[in-house]
Amino acid sequence: MTVAVLSGLVRPLVEPHLPEGIETRWYTSVEEMLALAPEAEIGWFDLDKKEPMVEAVRAAGKLKWLNSIYAGLDFLPLDLLAERKVTITNGAGINAITIAEYVVMLMLSHAKGYREVVRAQDRHEWLMDSPGKMELAGSRALLLGLGAIGALIKTRLEAFDVEVVPVRRSASEGALRPDEWRARLGEFDWVILAVPATPETDAMIGASELAAMKDSAVLVNIARGAVVDQAALVEALKARSIGGALLDVTTPEPLPADDQLWSLDNAQITMHLSGRAQSKMFVRSAERFIANCRRYVADEPLAPIFDPARGY
Amino acid sequence: MTVAVLSGLVRPLVEPHLPEGIETRWYTSVEEMLALAPEAEIGWFDLDKKEPMVEAVRAAGKLKWLNSIYAGLDFLPLDLLAERKVTITNGAGINAITIAEYVVMLMLSHAKGYREVVRAQDRHEWLMDSPGKMELAGSRALLLGLGAIGALIKTRLEAFDVEVVPVRRSASEGALRPDEWRARLGEFDWVILAVPATPETDAMIGASELAAMKDSAVLVNIARGAVVDQAALVEALKARSIGGALLDVTTPEPLPADDQLWSLDNAQITMHLSGRAQSKMFVRSAERFIANCRRYVADEPLAPIFDPARGY
Repeated sequence: MTVAVLSGLVRPLVEPHLPEGIETRWYTSVEEMLALAPEAEIGWFDLDKKEPMVEAVRAAGKLKWLNSIYAGLDFLPLDLLAERKVTITNGAGINAITIAEYVVMLMLSHAKGYREVVRAQDRHEWLMDSPGKMELAGSRALLLGLGAIGALIKTRLEAFDVEVVPVRRSASEGALRPDEWRARLGEFDWVILAVPATPETDAMIGASELAAMKDSAVLVNIARGAVVDQAALVEALKARSIGGALLDVTTPEPLPADDQLWSLDNAQITMHLSGRAQSKMFVRSAERFIANCRRYVADEPLAPIFDPARGY
Repeated sequence: MTVAVLSGLVRPLVEPHLPEGIETRWYTSVEEMLALAPEAEIGWFDLDKKEPMVEAVRAAGKLKWLNSIYAGLDFLPLDLLAERKVTITNGAGINAITIAEYVVMLMLSHAKGYREVVRAQDRHEWLMDSPGKMELAGSRALLLGLGAIGALIKTRLEAFDVEVVPVRRSASEGALRPDEWRARLGEFDWVILAVPATPETDAMIGASELAAMKDSAVLVNIARGAVVDQAALVEALKARSIGGALLDVTTPEPLPADDQLWSLDNAQITMHLSGRAQSKMFVRSAERFIANCRRYVADEPLAPIFDPARGY
């Protein structure tokens, strides 16, 4: 019998649909999770805190399959998981729709100066002109990362007549290669970071990339804070050498209340909420987990697989 | 020789491109405009105030062609213009791109509770969860008015996997007829008003239409304030019998500072800015005017024609 250790939160969504051959143990506290972890062949140890998730993974000596609702799992002991040959399925794509929607919202909010309109309504003041006068139509976006999220961003922006140029490993029509995009940074109105968090993407946007951008261009980061050299970004925003930054992610998170990023009028900080701005995450994740359980008992390959060596 | 009376503001955009046969008179003040109006065969009398525009039209006894950057011209003495057989070209479609972008921004802002995020950034507060959790994907929108703006709204929303059902005079696949939509109001998550301002569309959304909407449904008005019975709307918003209202237009405009609409947390008031959130309006309008001047001297039909009898 295969033992699966799961959060009681997903029990109503998962239990009625599980295949034969899986015996479930439900936890309703961190303590219960840590106590049950050593029995788990299948583990779904998601919590809103990372430390106990790491602890559960370490304690789960019998683990063969680790599932998570999260896409980025770089905070887990990936070496240990690789060594133990644990199969990992992650939440890649679960939040893609809502994150893509969020990105377009932030770009439109920047273009139209919408935050000033919100503040004016709060003051009961009728503005006579728009604080922002950009159109998305006719603008050009460089898209770094063409996974599930990037692909949805692309189709949405294209409907607004934005020319979206993705970066791809292999040469393809309308795309730039990884060794080409830096030299072309000055051609874009938007630089959108939707890359996975890996050592390769760490600080991929630094002082020189920011300096190469147009002074009206906007950096959009929905990847990870570490993808951007944040000190260099703050300098660029203060010097207004770029037009703005739309930051769903920062370093660190939460951003301390005295961090100067909060006060920069050309930065929008959205507190890693983009993936949470939806109510279907658990439903989608549960449906995916159940489908994978059926594959697991039938000895078929699971999907989507998170590769600890690759980091996504 | 055909005399054209035009604002000095468009002179740099228009003068270099005018065809032979048109003699221009440029005004730089209301007084100059009113003094020049009686000479005008072609008049482009746009100002940010309506009263002197009305006065200029009344004074322009030789007028054969009236041009405007505005789409809605219901404030002009249309009977007089019809009586004098003046051809009217308006700004229909000039602002369509930016208004369509604005509509999607407002819908996304509502869906994600973005105003709360803006206010949290202003407080330097890292929110732990999204104030809004709706996705556009999978929602259904009723679109009243399928002119230049409505058509662009439709394609943009469809890219977000919104099912957009337009209302059309003639039956067509996926559309509702004018006598059908009221009975179907309860099926939609969004009701978008992009109709022209005519006696027919006056107060087309009143207490009974609002009552027929889902309690989560959102009314979007980028048409004219008069299209909605605003007192009934305020009651519906206060009672939370609908989910919200995204109002680019109100009655009156500007909305007085003590109007209760300002304070309703489920209403977004955007001060008729949607069409102004762009910088290409004058360029597009000038290009269109020049193309029409060439047609005028060649005795060809102008476009787009505003029909005073129809009201759009």
